[in-house]
Formats: sequence, structure tokens, C-alpha cells
Amino acid sequence: MKRLLLLVSLLPAVAQAQSDPAVTAARQWRQQHERAIVDDFFALLSIPNIAADRDNIRRNADAIIAMMKRRGITATLLTVPGANPVVFGEIRTPGATRTIAFYAHYDGQPVDPKEWASPPFAPTLRDRAIENGGRPVPVPAAGIPLDPESRIYARSAGDDKAPIVAMMTALDAIRAAGLKTRSNIKFAFEGEEEANSTNLERIFAANRAALSADVWLICDGPLHQTRRQSIVFGARGIAAVDVTVYGPRVELHSGHYGNWAPNPAMLLARLLASMKDDSGRVLIDRFYDGIQPLSETERRAIADAPTPDADLMREFWLGATDGAPKTLAELITLPSLNIRGLASARTGSQAAGVIPSSATAALDIRLVKGMDKDAIVERLIDHVRRQGFFVVSTEPGAEVRRAHPKVARVTARPGGYNSVRTSMDLPISREIIRVVERARGNAVKIPNMGAGVPLDIFERNLGAPTIVLPIANHDDNQHSFDEHLRLQNLWDGIELMAALLTM
Amino acid sequence: MKRLLLLVSLLPAVAQAQSDPAVTAARQWRQQHERAIVDDFFALLSIPNIAADRDNIRRNADAIIAMMKRRGITATLLTVPGANPVVFGEIRTPGATRTIAFYAHYDGQPVDPKEWASPPFAPTLRDRAIENGGRPVPVPAAGIPLDPESRIYARSAGDDKAPIVAMMTALDAIRAAGLKTRSNIKFAFEGEEEANSTNLERIFAANRAALSADVWLICDGPLHQTRRQSIVFGARGIAAVDVTVYGPRVELHSGHYGNWAPNPAMLLARLLASMKDDSGRVLIDRFYDGIQPLSETERRAIADAPTPDADLMREFWLGATDGAPKTLAELITLPSLNIRGLASARTGSQAAGVIPSSATAALDIRLVKGMDKDAIVERLIDHVRRQGFFVVSTEPGAEVRRAHPKVARVTARPGGYNSVRTSMDLPISREIIRVVERARGNAVKIPNMGAGVPLDIFERNLGAPTIVLPIANHDDNQHSFDEHLRLQNLWDGIELMAALLTM
Repeated sequence: MKRLLLLVSLLPAVAQAQSDPAVTAARQWRQQHERAIVDDFFALLSIPNIAADRDNIRRNADAIIAMMKRRGITATLLTVPGANPVVFGEIRTPGATRTIAFYAHYDGQPVDPKEWASPPFAPTLRDRAIENGGRPVPVPAAGIPLDPESRIYARSAGDDKAPIVAMMTALDAIRAAGLKTRSNIKFAFEGEEEANSTNLERIFAANRAALSADVWLICDGPLHQTRRQSIVFGARGIAAVDVTVYGPRVELHSGHYGNWAPNPAMLLARLLASMKDDSGRVLIDRFYDGIQPLSETERRAIADAPTPDADLMREFWLGATDGAPKTLAELITLPSLNIRGLASARTGSQAAGVIPSSATAALDIRLVKGMDKDAIVERLIDHVRRQGFFVVSTEPGAEVRRAHPKVARVTARPGGYNSVRTSMDLPISREIIRVVERARGNAVKIPNMGAGVPLDIFERNLGAPTIVLPIANHDDNQHSFDEHLRLQNLWDGIELMAALLTM
Repeated sequence: MKRLLLLVSLLPAVAQAQSDPAVTAARQWRQQHERAIVDDFFALLSIPNIAADRDNIRRNADAIIAMMKRRGITATLLTVPGANPVVFGEIRTPGATRTIAFYAHYDGQPVDPKEWASPPFAPTLRDRAIENGGRPVPVPAAGIPLDPESRIYARSAGDDKAPIVAMMTALDAIRAAGLKTRSNIKFAFEGEEEANSTNLERIFAANRAALSADVWLICDGPLHQTRRQSIVFGARGIAAVDVTVYGPRVELHSGHYGNWAPNPAMLLARLLASMKDDSGRVLIDRFYDGIQPLSETERRAIADAPTPDADLMREFWLGATDGAPKTLAELITLPSLNIRGLASARTGSQAAGVIPSSATAALDIRLVKGMDKDAIVERLIDHVRRQGFFVVSTEPGAEVRRAHPKVARVTARPGGYNSVRTSMDLPISREIIRVVERARGNAVKIPNMGAGVPLDIFERNLGAPTIVLPIANHDDNQHSFDEHLRLQNLWDGIELMAALLTM
């Protein structure tokens, strides 16, 4: 998942109501073992974890297996040929009638060590964030409390090894306090999430029984910009589409032929302009068909969510937003049609007096619950046809281009997936909300996040609802250099996991 | 000037009516001196002539001075500090009441010798064009006729040393036949036309008296694709404009913010689409104001001109043209608004799921007689404003972008010039037509070419009408590698110059 923007003005003190004994146990254990917890975390962060680095990926998997086995968890590797393994662990609880499953991933984004202030696989404690002047500090000896605002710098400190360490530590804490799990517990830690989860579906399909659960808790991504715990019930889907419009076979001199040879950049501009009105509403026929409307609970959640819109506008230098007066929180529950990029001939110092030969737009469509990615691409193609284009799916040759006044190549990119939105009104959803809020205070409940996560792999293969529960700080630089975790987020995460493991 | 396309199907036999004694004299002289003429041409082509290569430019200028002095022409260099010199020559004719001035340029386009089949400054005779299997052949000894379809390969063989050699040879021919000039004759050969004629205006302004004339014959560019002699009475002007539209300060994740953060590529598409209707007509208010309508003679010339449109469409893989059913010949007498290039974020394999931070279009406006380049840029800016944009001329900062829903930066590129179109009905125009057609048969008379040539430098500084008279073959690869001249074009050019020098 991608990092979100820092919203300093929206950082409130979180009011927490901690009457859950597991949370109390987690806090006491953590306060007594801060150094040991950080040592464990550092050890895991020290193993390079780029998905393509098979040897080190295996070292990570083995280290996590060992962490589980030390805690008496049945642990094994699930894999298929060519895949990085999913580390799978299971706690069977006598008499339990349900299974709570936890997902995280142990691989990380690629790194360019030159960009990092300290090496990405040499975990470094800093007294605060680098952008606030943070400097390396030694990890205090056992028994001396750490500054909760200090930061651990390393690849995957936030995304996504922190939840793994939080879960294992939470288990230690509840056991030390004599508390017990009440549900069956499963853990699945993926090894190639940052490489597009290419094999996750095959691994799931091959291990349906082992992975069956009543709910999957996706412990990934950053918290809300307000630092409040977020509970995210879904994600938008995505379909990426490339559109190329054709002009003359070769670039032509715009003096000799300007006014006569059709300009593909202008044809593309007109085509793109036909797709949206001035308010941002998509004009493609049936684009909004089939969308599952928000429930009353979801609408109320959006109304209750913080509205960072004004701060974001200031931060991003925006004088207006699309879809106003609807807020960002509301708008991401609607589909979007976005131009990712445009290209035709050259601009700036490279510009020449030509009529370009073609013009290309890269588009993405963000889907919400009820939309089908293949159907929406077909509707887009129908729209292009209705604008007078002959639509092809491969590079058109002379005959096709001579035969039609306007030719467009429209191709959907491989991949893409539909949106998943778990109902907040399911009994398991209500219980998760209750448990999370008892541990972490009033949470930001989000019907679906704006970005895509392939939750439908869980839904389709395992038939279970998914709920996303992040613990990392929103300003953790995940997917960039100098990734880091704010220590208080790890402490809070341990308490959250303790609550969830004992529900 | 840029090369034009080969139109094989439009190559007729040229019917010529040669009753001009100068033309007869030129042909006889040429037939007797083919080897010597080619030797002279090779000698001039052997001197590298890139405008930035000052030493060799000076060697070219000195060689041309020597060519003139050998023929008794008063010759000198006109220059200003920092400029390559204009080689100026003058023949004063006793009793003459008018002055005919000839322009050509002796510099050439930059070369990349690796691209050339033979070195660009080692002139090479080939039996035909390389694309038709042409191979180097020795230049026949004096007295043996050359194949008129053979080609001389060298930089500037077509663009634009051929006219210089044609003029000098024509002078030899008419003198040998006992013919005389009847007008005063002036020659001005520029040394930096391919470097944008940066200093031509200053040189002209500093030498107005020396350069005064009744007409300037601009001997440059290629002939019509039919191989018929063309007489071009003007050229479109040009104004190039860059338009940048702004979105968020940095690229944003299109999942998290898509539907909320305005997309500059879409704003640009809508803005561009607002500038033209589906038929290609420009919708900018007052865009067509002030245009000088075509005269009856000009309209007749267009109606009489060959219409290569169908061939060009086939060659360029076009299924339609803008402005149909108007023809190319007619459409280039109208202004155009052209998108030279588009850029916003990335497309293809580099595309990412972002809302771009800005989107840029490079535009050019081709102007016709009666339009002013500065006024048209203002009208374009007014149009952008009417589409709701706050228009700036420099990169806008945070305050400007936060204060306005839509911000566009619109800047005209330096340079650009207005169109010139000399009336075909001027007595001097009529006489040039008569002289040219007597020498070269029925000519293609073009009110203005589509491409730009800064004829207004002549008009504004020297107050004289300009008429463009090319001699090079249209398929000479000028501005590219393997530039060449078809020998028959040189022979025809000598006859044309003989006729013009004795008018």
C-alpha cells in the first residue's frame, strides 16, 4: 500500500478506553520487554527482503517459521512452483467455533541504498523522523524505556514486518498474563506482495482448506493521517487501459500539412474530453451501472470520518477539487476515470513543427463494489466507438488506417481486479469494530480505501470477508527510501493484536 | 525549407514552350560544358557549410566571391558582429530602370556523416537515387553527356547551393551568346539560413540602400511534387505557443485521490478540445479576423493547381482529412492551429497509477496574410481565460495555484513571424510568371506555401515584394541525410536563371 500525506493539523490526542485485559497485558509485557522486542524486530529487519532475492526471501521465511515455532505455533511454508512461499501458522483452540486469520507480508519494496540515510537492512533507531532532524541513537539497555516518538529506520519497518512482530509479541504477552485464545487463529505471511502478488491466487487455490477462516484481517498499510486507528472494509478495484489515436503514418511538417492532415493529439483531446463533464462526472454510457449503493452504516461512517480535504488542498496547491462539495472520503466510494499520462510527439525544447503520427493516453479506472472490470472496459470501448472511432486491439496497418477516418487502439492492461467491500453490518464486522475500538479508541471506519488491494483473491478463493487493519504510521515513507516505523505505532499494534488474538 | 513527398502518380511530362533566346543559349552552353559545370558545383559542395563552422563558412563565402569576380560581378561581404556574412554581388546594367534581386543561401543543415551513404562533403555522382538502387558512377569526361536522371549527392546539393551555381552558369551562357542583362541584378547569398537567419534582419537593416530592389526572388526549397516549376508568392507565418495546465503539486496516487484531485491532463484535453470543432475549424474568438481574402487570381491559381490529395492520403495512411472537401492547396491559404506535442506524466511501460502534476501541449499557429502573430497569441490567451483558467506567463507558485481552480501557463516562443503573400496581380508578379512559364512551361502557381519562411524580413526591411522560385527536386532529401540534386533539375535551373537574368 502507498503512503499517505502527513496532516499535522489533524493530529489529535487519541482517547482510548482500555478495559480489555489483553490490552492491559500487552502494555505491561511491552513495558517490561521493550529492548527485547526491538531486538527481535531488528533481527527480522536485518534480513534483506526484496521479492526477487530468493535466497534472502527464504531466510526471512525461515526466521518467521522459527519465531512461530518458539511460540508453539504449528508453522509451515505454502508455495507453488516459482513462488515465494507464504509462511503459514496455526493455533488450534480447543472448543473454538470460529477462525480469525491474520495476513501480512514479509517482502519489501526494492531499495536504492544510495538514497537512504542509513543502510536499508541495517535497522537504525533515530530520536525522531529525519525530516524533523532525527539522528541515530543507541537502543537503550533492557529496563530503560524507549522514547515512543523515536523511529526505527529500515526497509519494511512499516510495510510490512511490523505487524508480524506485533502479533508474535502479543502472543507472548497474553500467555504471560495467563490469557488464552478463544478462536482458532491462522497466520499467512506473503513473500511477494510488493511484486504484485503474482502467485497468491495459485497458493490460495491450492490450500483452501488450510486457509479457511471466518474473517481475514489484512494487517498492511498505514494508519489514517490523524493517527487514529483505521478499520478499512474494502478497496477500490482497478482496470488500466491504454488508448492510442492515429494520425499520418509519419510525423508531417505542420506548415506543409497543418489544417489538412488530421492531428491525433487533437483527436485524442476531443475523445478524452468526451469522457467526463466539467464536474468530473464520467459520461461513458452505463459507467455507473450496477454500483452497490452505500448502506446506512457506511454513509454514517463517512459522515463521521475526519475530513482532511482543506489541509490536503493546501498541501497539494489545489484551488478546487473534482466532485465538490462531496468530500474525499465520499468520493473514493465512487468510481473514477483517471488519465495517468499523455504522450504525443514532443514538447518543450524538443518540440518541432510537426503533426504527430499518434497520440496516447494511459488511463486507469478505479472500480467500486458492483462494477466488473471487464464490463467497464467494454463500455469504454463502446464509448470510443460512439465518438466515431474504429477500434482495434493491435497496431493498425495501412489498410485499416486508410479505411477509417478515425482509428483508436484500445487495450486493457493485464491484471486489474474488482473492488471488495465487506459490509460493516456483518456480525463479524461489528465484533471487529467493537474489539478494535475497545483496544484503540474511536476508530476511523472507511467503507473502502481509494487505492487498490487485491482483496478479491481472498474473497474468491477463500470465501471469507476481509477487513484491513493497519498499524504503521501514515508518514512512514513506505515504498520510498528512509522507510521507518514510529515506535508508539509498534506499541499500539501489539495491544491491538493482543485484543484480536483473544476475541 | 523542408522536403516534400514524392508523388509518383503525378509526374507528367512537362510541356515547355522555349522561345526565350536566353533559355536556348543556356541549354546550348550547358550541353557543351556539362563536365565543367559539374566540376564547379563539386568544388563548392566540397567545402563544409554548417553555419556554426565559422572557418569553413568563410571559405564558402570566399569561394562564391571568387566565382562572382571571375564573372566580373562586383562582390563583397555584408555582415554585422557575430553573423556569418551575406555574400553580395551586383551587376549594374546601363539604362536599366529596375532591379531584380536573387536570394539563396550557402549554409546547409547539420550532418551526421554516419547516416550518409557517401560523405556529405565528398560530392558523389550516382546513376539514380539510392532508394532506387543508385550507385556511384564516375563523372564522364568533358564532351560526354551526363544522364539527366543521375543525382549529385552532397549536403546542400539541393538546399541551397544549386541555385548559386545555376545563376553563375546562366551568366556564362548568356554572355557567350552575346545576350545582355536588361535590369540591374543583385545577388545576396545568406550564410546562416539553416541556423534560423538570426542575423539576417540586422544585416538587411544595415544595408538597405545596397539591397534595394524591385523584387526579391527567393531561390530556395523544392519544386512541386509533380516536378512542374512552382512559383510561390508567399508563405504562412508562425507563432509557437506552449500551454501548461496544473494539477496537484506532486503526482498523487490515483487510487487514494482519483475522483477528488483535479487531473491536469483532463483539464488540458478539455481546453484543447474547446479550441477546434469536429471539422477542424478553430473556435478561438476572432481567430479568423483580419484575414486578407484570396483574390480572384489566387483562387484561380488554386483551382488550376494539381490536387495530390488522394495520393497523399494513401501515402500517409489517412482515412480522412480536416477541412474536407477543401483541398490541401486551398487549406494552406487558411490559418491552422496545430498540436505539435502533448506530455503529461508517463505512458506505456512507464505509466504509473498517478494523477499527473501538470500537462503540457506545444502548439503552433500557422498564420496567413492579414493576421498578426502577437494579436493571435493574445486571442489564444483570451480563449484560455474564457475556459475558466487563470493565465500566467511564468511557473505559478503555491499561492497562485491555491487561489484559482484552474491555472494555465501560456507562453509564446521567441521568434515567429507574420505571413507574406505577394499579389499575383502586381505587374512584376505577372512578368515573373510570364518569364518563368516561357522558360519552364506551365507553372504551379501557389498563393502561399504552407510552411513558414521569414519573407517578412525582406518586406519590412527592404520594402520589396518576394517571390519564391525553387529549382531542386522535391525528393532531394533536404534537411536529412543523403541529400541530393537530380541533374535535370540543375539543367532546368540554369535555363530558368538565364531567363530571369535577362528579363
